[in-house]
Amino acid sequence: MRRFCRLAAVVLAAATLTFGCSQTTQTQSQPYAELSEYALASNLGFDIVKSLTVEVGPRIPGSDGDKRAVEWAQAKFAELGFDRVFTQPVRVRNWSRGLADAKVTAPYEHDLVITALGGSIATPEDGLQAEIIMADSLEHLTTMSPDDVRGKIVFINHRMERDRAGRGYGPVVSGRVRGAVEASKLGASAILIRSVGTANSRFAHTGIMRYADDVEKIPAGALSNADADTIAAMVEAGHKVKLDVHLRAKELGWQTSYNVIGEFTGTERPDEIVLISAHLDSWDEGTGALDDGAGVGIVMAAAKLIKEQLGQPKRTIRVVLYAAEEIGLVGAHEYTRLEKDNLGKLIVAAESDFGAGKIYRLDTLFSPVGLTQAEPLFTALAPLGVERGNNEATGGPDVSMLPKYGVPVVNLRQDGTYYFDYHHTPNDTLDKIDPAALQQNVAVWAIFTAFMANSSIETRSPQS
Amino acid sequence: MRRFCRLAAVVLAAATLTFGCSQTTQTQSQPYAELSEYALASNLGFDIVKSLTVEVGPRIPGSDGDKRAVEWAQAKFAELGFDRVFTQPVRVRNWSRGLADAKVTAPYEHDLVITALGGSIATPEDGLQAEIIMADSLEHLTTMSPDDVRGKIVFINHRMERDRAGRGYGPVVSGRVRGAVEASKLGASAILIRSVGTANSRFAHTGIMRYADDVEKIPAGALSNADADTIAAMVEAGHKVKLDVHLRAKELGWQTSYNVIGEFTGTERPDEIVLISAHLDSWDEGTGALDDGAGVGIVMAAAKLIKEQLGQPKRTIRVVLYAAEEIGLVGAHEYTRLEKDNLGKLIVAAESDFGAGKIYRLDTLFSPVGLTQAEPLFTALAPLGVERGNNEATGGPDVSMLPKYGVPVVNLRQDGTYYFDYHHTPNDTLDKIDPAALQQNVAVWAIFTAFMANSSIETRSPQS
Repeated sequence: MRRFCRLAAVVLAAATLTFGCSQTTQTQSQPYAELSEYALASNLGFDIVKSLTVEVGPRIPGSDGDKRAVEWAQAKFAELGFDRVFTQPVRVRNWSRGLADAKVTAPYEHDLVITALGGSIATPEDGLQAEIIMADSLEHLTTMSPDDVRGKIVFINHRMERDRAGRGYGPVVSGRVRGAVEASKLGASAILIRSVGTANSRFAHTGIMRYADDVEKIPAGALSNADADTIAAMVEAGHKVKLDVHLRAKELGWQTSYNVIGEFTGTERPDEIVLISAHLDSWDEGTGALDDGAGVGIVMAAAKLIKEQLGQPKRTIRVVLYAAEEIGLVGAHEYTRLEKDNLGKLIVAAESDFGAGKIYRLDTLFSPVGLTQAEPLFTALAPLGVERGNNEATGGPDVSMLPKYGVPVVNLRQDGTYYFDYHHTPNDTLDKIDPAALQQNVAVWAIFTAFMANSSIETRSPQS
Repeated sequence: MRRFCRLAAVVLAAATLTFGCSQTTQTQSQPYAELSEYALASNLGFDIVKSLTVEVGPRIPGSDGDKRAVEWAQAKFAELGFDRVFTQPVRVRNWSRGLADAKVTAPYEHDLVITALGGSIATPEDGLQAEIIMADSLEHLTTMSPDDVRGKIVFINHRMERDRAGRGYGPVVSGRVRGAVEASKLGASAILIRSVGTANSRFAHTGIMRYADDVEKIPAGALSNADADTIAAMVEAGHKVKLDVHLRAKELGWQTSYNVIGEFTGTERPDEIVLISAHLDSWDEGTGALDDGAGVGIVMAAAKLIKEQLGQPKRTIRVVLYAAEEIGLVGAHEYTRLEKDNLGKLIVAAESDFGAGKIYRLDTLFSPVGLTQAEPLFTALAPLGVERGNNEATGGPDVSMLPKYGVPVVNLRQDGTYYFDYHHTPNDTLDKIDPAALQQNVAVWAIFTAFMANSSIETRSPQS
């Protein structure tokens, strides 16, 4: 990769020439201005999400909906004129939520809105009747005595904070993922969590949870935030609170799902690949519009609009729709395994998987030379409200394993202020997408992708 | 009532004197300023709604929850020190929603979020499978040909508009109430409506519907707005849309519910009554926090805070918590029947039944003399952001039948911009109440009620 170093000056000049910008003028070049205008006037991104959510709907990995989504994605790539469409089989565990219901039986009868966490076992056929013990957080739970927890239903009442960047998620989601193991170690009969979500609505938020091989499995569910409030009010008034919980989740065994991939092959350097991506699967209660239909629409539309407006790209644009993100980046890990000898071809990888809020910042993980060469890109994105960010990007969930193989990544940071109001709920539906914000996303991704594919930018570190 | 006329000048003087205001200064008098400050610092209103929603929860007329609510209300009046607490039996039809589910079976399979409309019959045991025909509104439905409708499921896709005063409700709710009759006349097998609600959420909004004796009953349900969008998208794409609908609603026969009434007896004119009210019942899926736990909290707290701050009132303050508002103002009609010989004692009647948004206007239905005498009241309410409104008040649902008996009424108009996001859904829960807005409501009702009870205002027309 030493050649990149020597070529840096030439490349920078070329990039500047190609797009008619310079660092001094800092104005958006003509091709970007036109591409931006074209994308901002196009409904293609929204039409794609609408097609996916209306014609397919929910698509939990391995389900019939997931199979329909795989067919839909291949047909959509073909319809959009991608010149290569292929799939990669991915083995997934199919899990079915089943009906879930629960009620408070003491001190006051109350029906609760509950959902099983992804991967949870069921409760016994007659349900589970037990007193609850409330913990403020996973950390609080781990300080509890087994004498206080044994036989009870642990209730983690940890409220997620709203934040544009979604920084409230990390501290709270640990209770969802690891709560069952920690509670079971203390002898709990089940674990329920306050939903990991920012809306105080009556929807429960699902999401993946984990068991450990050496710890007994216990049922795990999430209560809506409104119901968590009700229970907390009873606990805080000094009552013993008893619940009757029924989760009817089921493991359905192994199924085959697929990563679905569409390409516009590069005219000049077909073996240099710009990978943009989203995930095709979703949870099962909503229609997966924000998570991650929006991402699917954004990256498919961005590639297609580049083709329409600028013609075939110089480098290959590869759009990857990953399988089974929700249950542990399964499709992405399989992609990495299958493509391990080709990862050096990736100029950059990025995923759109944070809803449809406007993009406000571009973070990169580029070599110093690449960062300098990216100046015209930052300039081109500025009129769309996108700031230059840091150089510590992680790339998004499904490409987060690539930097350790030397693959440069970026994050096009979206406004996620309201994302976790809907995330993993039945309320993740098409109407939650603002068409204008989606158009801004498509325009930003189109400019980013066009720059990466049509310039000679070298994003890799020489040693990588 | 001719004496009121003769007394007008004296009364006006007395009102002015009692509260230390005049039309010229237009400043809030000392007792009102203190009462307002006291109410704005009190959590009593919120605590009452919290108690009702946590300790009782849903309370559909005639249900066990309703019976618990009646006991709760009597106990709460006693706890708050009301000096007379009594009930009026009200016969109500008890109806149970049962589980409801529906799916699109063609052109694309989709699970739908649906709820039965209040009073609907069930679908056949194996569900109802039929094609839909979409109408834009009830009016549109009535123009359709029986040949097009026969055997189909009518789907009224009429979207409610958001409005501070809730003016979007009237034009749309007619489809909910009368849709089954109109659809059945044309031979439809069932009717489904887009939910009468302003949030585009995945909750379906229930509410009462009606049958006609001479028209065959058909099942009636509401789809969430997000699901209505999905179906509309399929219809608009030219597809025949088929549904499989299961409503398991049941008539459970007659039960006795109760209007629950608490009073602070007037010291000087106990037979002159200031009636403030809310309704105790709710629909069954939420906890009835906005509809109408908020009203219950507001009027109970207002009366109690007057007693605490100003002592026993001169006229009697009567707080009425009506039974069975949701199924047709049943408790209110019974109140009117039972009290028909005493309606002349009512100085004013008003109900709080529009959630917990801030009050922005006072509309009255007072005699010209009463309106003049009310000047200090308008002055006292101005610092709380309450404007003087029109003199065409209707009083709120449960007192709407009283003006025809000569009873003066007012509307303390609340900001209902978001009320219909939650109205009649599982999402009508305590967290939807802004405690500060509720305090403003309590302060306004306290000032209004204190003025009516402690001044000598004569609100009735001499001829009434």
